[in-house]
Amino acid sequence: MDIDDLAIRIPAQDRRALARAITLVESGRADHRAEAAKLLAALPQDGEALRIGLSGTPGVGKSTFIESFGMMLTGMGKRVAVLAVDPSSSRSGGSILGDKTRMDQLSRDPNAFIRPSPSQTQLGGVARRTREAVRLCEAAGYDVVLIETVGVGQSETVVAEMSDLFVLLLAPAGGDELQGVKRGIMEMADVILINKADGELKAAATRTCADYAGALRLLRKRPQDPPDYPCAMTVSALEENGLDKAWQSLTDLAKWRRENGFWDRTRAAQARYWFMEDVKQRLLAQLSEAETKARLDALSDAVAAGEQDPSAAAQAFIEGLRR
Amino acid sequence: MDIDDLAIRIPAQDRRALARAITLVESGRADHRAEAAKLLAALPQDGEALRIGLSGTPGVGKSTFIESFGMMLTGMGKRVAVLAVDPSSSRSGGSILGDKTRMDQLSRDPNAFIRPSPSQTQLGGVARRTREAVRLCEAAGYDVVLIETVGVGQSETVVAEMSDLFVLLLAPAGGDELQGVKRGIMEMADVILINKADGELKAAATRTCADYAGALRLLRKRPQDPPDYPCAMTVSALEENGLDKAWQSLTDLAKWRRENGFWDRTRAAQARYWFMEDVKQRLLAQLSEAETKARLDALSDAVAAGEQDPSAAAQAFIEGLRR
Repeated sequence: MDIDDLAIRIPAQDRRALARAITLVESGRADHRAEAAKLLAALPQDGEALRIGLSGTPGVGKSTFIESFGMMLTGMGKRVAVLAVDPSSSRSGGSILGDKTRMDQLSRDPNAFIRPSPSQTQLGGVARRTREAVRLCEAAGYDVVLIETVGVGQSETVVAEMSDLFVLLLAPAGGDELQGVKRGIMEMADVILINKADGELKAAATRTCADYAGALRLLRKRPQDPPDYPCAMTVSALEENGLDKAWQSLTDLAKWRRENGFWDRTRAAQARYWFMEDVKQRLLAQLSEAETKARLDALSDAVAAGEQDPSAAAQAFIEGLRR
Repeated sequence: MDIDDLAIRIPAQDRRALARAITLVESGRADHRAEAAKLLAALPQDGEALRIGLSGTPGVGKSTFIESFGMMLTGMGKRVAVLAVDPSSSRSGGSILGDKTRMDQLSRDPNAFIRPSPSQTQLGGVARRTREAVRLCEAAGYDVVLIETVGVGQSETVVAEMSDLFVLLLAPAGGDELQGVKRGIMEMADVILINKADGELKAAATRTCADYAGALRLLRKRPQDPPDYPCAMTVSALEENGLDKAWQSLTDLAKWRRENGFWDRTRAAQARYWFMEDVKQRLLAQLSEAETKARLDALSDAVAAGEQDPSAAAQAFIEGLRR
């Protein structure tokens, strides 16, 4: 399939074309990057998908939640894509989504598309690739794109930069303490879901939910929030309880933001952000090109040998690059 | 003073020339960067100064330690420079070194040179500038360059990348717990000093020291360590106790590393590191130049308006840059 082919087949909901296009945007090769840019430019610019960022540390039941929540959505006739940002993952393991068997039903649903995190050790690389995969899924007509992250380090921030709505999934806390959720992550959340509100943990989930609702009220009000948002609620992915309420809460918020101008504004700011990130990465990628790299290595050797000052050598290198 | 002047006056131990040169390397202006590179290239490459990184959170008595330790060294006939890496500092306050009155005696000593952290919000910028200031101090014939950091986030790492030896300064702990010092920082330390081993805190300091000595023994042995290193010892900056022993321990370690080839190897690796960092920063700095920035802003507007895809626009921008 060439680029023109992909640009026709993706909007026609051809899953194989989508998968190949994602493989293309995941590649770091310069010619692939150029083809990917051509493909993305050929696809419709603004999609209608609801992009939902989902953060939750291991143990909160994220796979079970995605399975139940995704099945509910496909049951409503929606097409659902699930992507992941997990810089520590590799194809061989680590990523939750790498193990599709944990989302057994959803992975076999023809209206669902699950794609593990691209394997890459640099968060920046994973982020850019996933952001482009979101665009591709949107162009392929998915109604909801879930972007999950395990919430290590800065990964929430980059997921929030590619999401319309941000959901924080938590487990019931043992005591009445908030589970050491960093303030910065709390401030990103539009909806906090306390999972495992079932069986023995039900009471604890209700208590934890009240704690978080209280904590959210103490945060500074954000302009993009209607009254009663951000909010906290309990769900049970296992018993499929509360998932419809959570969905309602998300779609209500999305509707309000669209009607009040925040939707377009946020997407525009995000597009600017990714443009700048992409420019920076492409600029730095020049350093890996064979000819440039040879010159860089030679200068680095001279610097290591004490024959040249690092700053002076850097200056000389950059001047050479621009000639 | 022009660059040739500075290149003569700095090795002649002209303090005013040194101060002006540091101001020059702190500047972000492209013409200043070019001049700074020229100056650094004109100065002798490898200095003989002992570069000591010093990390300690507020409250451990860092200013008092630098004052006492520095005065001891100048009393021994050594010339001492003190620099700081503190990305959160600004000229108006925040930095410990900004307030020279806290190192009253040392700041008036003709054989000491104290320079506050360059004001800058980006750690990368502060780090590069401080690294160049270290080179300048070395060229100006200082025997010891102390590089202090308050130890927030990644600042220890960048200080370690410009130091021959790394000292971690701690206060006595209340109980027998290790004071939540991150493992990564412990692993960087060559010598741990427990300060405030005086008065009521003396017993606690001894206990804390034993705890850290035990913890250090559990860490993986590093090739650059002779037997009995890394080590922990108590000092009292207030009563000027143990400072001579700490100095002995540092010079013994320095001697061993020089004799066993680790000294040159480390400096070579550090020079490579700073060369690459400098190349990356100069590459990205191109984006701030007027003509480039105008084109970048125009593309960013088109991206925000949905007229262009972020990746495709980035690709087009980079191609334009290289023509």
